[in-house]
Amino acid sequence: MVAEIISVGTEILLGNIVNTNAAYLSEQCALLGINCYYQDVVGDNRERIMGILRTALERADVLLIGGGLGPTPDDLTKETCAEVLGKQLYMDEAVKTSILDFFNRKGITPASNNFKQALVPEGAVVLENPNGTAPGLILEANGKHLILLPGPPNELVPMFEEKVKPYLQNLVPGTIYSKMVKLCGVGESAVAEQIADLIEGQTNPTIATYAKTGEVHLRVTAKAEDEKAAKQLVKPMVKELKERFGNHIYSTENDTTLEKAVVDLLLANKLTVATAESCTGGLLAGRLINVAGVSDVFKNGLITYSNKSKHRLLGVKKKTLEKHGAVSKETAEEMAKGLAALTKADVAVSVTGIAGPDGGTDKKPVGLIYISCSVCGKTTTREFTFTGNRAKVREASVAAGLNLMRESILEYYSKEIFGS
Amino acid sequence: MVAEIISVGTEILLGNIVNTNAAYLSEQCALLGINCYYQDVVGDNRERIMGILRTALERADVLLIGGGLGPTPDDLTKETCAEVLGKQLYMDEAVKTSILDFFNRKGITPASNNFKQALVPEGAVVLENPNGTAPGLILEANGKHLILLPGPPNELVPMFEEKVKPYLQNLVPGTIYSKMVKLCGVGESAVAEQIADLIEGQTNPTIATYAKTGEVHLRVTAKAEDEKAAKQLVKPMVKELKERFGNHIYSTENDTTLEKAVVDLLLANKLTVATAESCTGGLLAGRLINVAGVSDVFKNGLITYSNKSKHRLLGVKKKTLEKHGAVSKETAEEMAKGLAALTKADVAVSVTGIAGPDGGTDKKPVGLIYISCSVCGKTTTREFTFTGNRAKVREASVAAGLNLMRESILEYYSKEIFGS
Repeated sequence: MVAEIISVGTEILLGNIVNTNAAYLSEQCALLGINCYYQDVVGDNRERIMGILRTALERADVLLIGGGLGPTPDDLTKETCAEVLGKQLYMDEAVKTSILDFFNRKGITPASNNFKQALVPEGAVVLENPNGTAPGLILEANGKHLILLPGPPNELVPMFEEKVKPYLQNLVPGTIYSKMVKLCGVGESAVAEQIADLIEGQTNPTIATYAKTGEVHLRVTAKAEDEKAAKQLVKPMVKELKERFGNHIYSTENDTTLEKAVVDLLLANKLTVATAESCTGGLLAGRLINVAGVSDVFKNGLITYSNKSKHRLLGVKKKTLEKHGAVSKETAEEMAKGLAALTKADVAVSVTGIAGPDGGTDKKPVGLIYISCSVCGKTTTREFTFTGNRAKVREASVAAGLNLMRESILEYYSKEIFGS
Repeated sequence: MVAEIISVGTEILLGNIVNTNAAYLSEQCALLGINCYYQDVVGDNRERIMGILRTALERADVLLIGGGLGPTPDDLTKETCAEVLGKQLYMDEAVKTSILDFFNRKGITPASNNFKQALVPEGAVVLENPNGTAPGLILEANGKHLILLPGPPNELVPMFEEKVKPYLQNLVPGTIYSKMVKLCGVGESAVAEQIADLIEGQTNPTIATYAKTGEVHLRVTAKAEDEKAAKQLVKPMVKELKERFGNHIYSTENDTTLEKAVVDLLLANKLTVATAESCTGGLLAGRLINVAGVSDVFKNGLITYSNKSKHRLLGVKKKTLEKHGAVSKETAEEMAKGLAALTKADVAVSVTGIAGPDGGTDKKPVGLIYISCSVCGKTTTREFTFTGNRAKVREASVAAGLNLMRESILEYYSKEIFGS
């Protein structure tokens, strides 16, 4: 089974938007065990859309087509697909009613061109769109499957998840099952080295590597007759990865982020948390507060960018700042300890460093970051040197901060429990 | 002049990475006045790359090809382009030396396959790559221009800026000049309405609209014989936009972000700033601290997520929290005033709201946000209702916070100056 992903929209060709739909649909095809050899982007132009459709019909079984389903005369995807397949359009009363309902809910009177969206090619399966007015469509002809999806990602993604995925699963013989193994605190190349023997000559299951800032995700995918059999193939590989990477694995759940893993750990151990940030300026707290339910554990966050605020709010000694500087192991440690004393939080984490582009010296270059984490009085401080621009350095620092929190809590409890 | 953008890499077809290169190259083409009708993505496969090249050579004058220039046997872009044009590869000693230098600087011994990157098609122009080992290449044949660029964006973008842009400018008759007009505090549809008459039937200059969270960017582009003449065409249109949008325009500079505009305003008026955030949890401070040089104005940032911290740190009255709730105009205002009193900052901004997904009620739905800004004792508080998921609501709140800071400062000074 081969799929081709076609994105329709002049705005993509002008560079106004980044084509995240294509990346999403490609990943979904990979997850379903469907090969994808081409992605195409074409503007809102009848001849050119037609040309792309004809080419894609020759080289793929499934065409996933996003965009161009709107109400304006520029939106030509549906009309052109129908034309290529020799199908007529008719007014679908059910779709018309649901468009009316959508506008009623919003208290707006629909314009006459909105009903263009209720025109449906004969024989098409209509996919309801609860998030917009353009319904999706599935057209079948001569063993080919054309799947038309609305362009906005917040409409395309839920429609794919709910309607298209089950449809495609039915087309693919067997079942695909995959499990994500998410690692932190270990680099991409180190991970690659440690799994080289598993990846070499892999057939079923397979491991795919995805690198994120401060994280590496491994997706283990297997194909079998049914889900149970596929799960059985995935299981020993995940077990092997757990043995190899141990505590570096922060989750095997698709929707668990690193910050959620940290918050879950805090909740599980009934620990409160506070942050004090210099160069990351609130981004670490921002990621923690991205987790719904963090309010039970988050005590306070401080952004102490200046020396004055490090001294006044956190009690970092003037002498420390003078002797070692604001970017130093000593300052980071006093920040974390001062924060713990001030807020009475169980876990107190601090970040100080040089995010650039200015402020670097030979001894203390741009990218030098110190992170300190105090867990119930036990403080660990680490030095990092990150590369990249200001935004990259800050993003990497936040990931390293989350990872240090995680490791410090795990270590504290292992010592508590085992008395070592 | 027509360009086609071809991205080579199986990792794109697996959805492992989002194709930001294509968006960047498309935008650059638009800026240069070069039409782009197709973007293609193809995997690391000789036959399929060759097919795409042949098709693209038929429909475009310039092929911008990114990726597949690495040292592994999978990297086939250069070899396949040479084959399609009937050109031989030879070892370029200058490139070989610069690859050796690159590895020497990093203290690594190059592997033998690294020298594959020094193979150059006959007649090609070699584009140096200071950020990696794969040089770029320009091949010309039969009036067509094939431009091969390394895949990593941090290599592709600077190479395009420094080497490819001047090359393309030479190919396009006349000069393109464009100016960005950046707006905030006004919605995309309101902007569209207010410039509909300017956009209708536009030829030279043209206006393109780019919507960002909480911002709208308008790019005015003109084409003329030389830069001076193009600038003359752009100037009256920018003036017209300034008259229509007034203070909603925060910058006409390409590299000025909204947070930079705010920090510039603080610096110009010698104002210090402090932040107190609830649902945005540090993200507003994080954006301000994204501006290099903010240390001169940023006093303190507080993340007061709980009622307790709002009361203890900022002095929000318990009665206010009980009567109006943490998400209320009254609390936001007391937060800003308390913050100003605590930190002695000239500008004190606070954010409180319901980012979701939980915590909403009929009276106070998810997305309800209050932002308050106190400038030298004068406090303005605004209510917003944003849609979207938790991340979207927070992002929109941060943009609205920056805009409120900007407007409050401007208003304060206009009143000061004009005594109204």
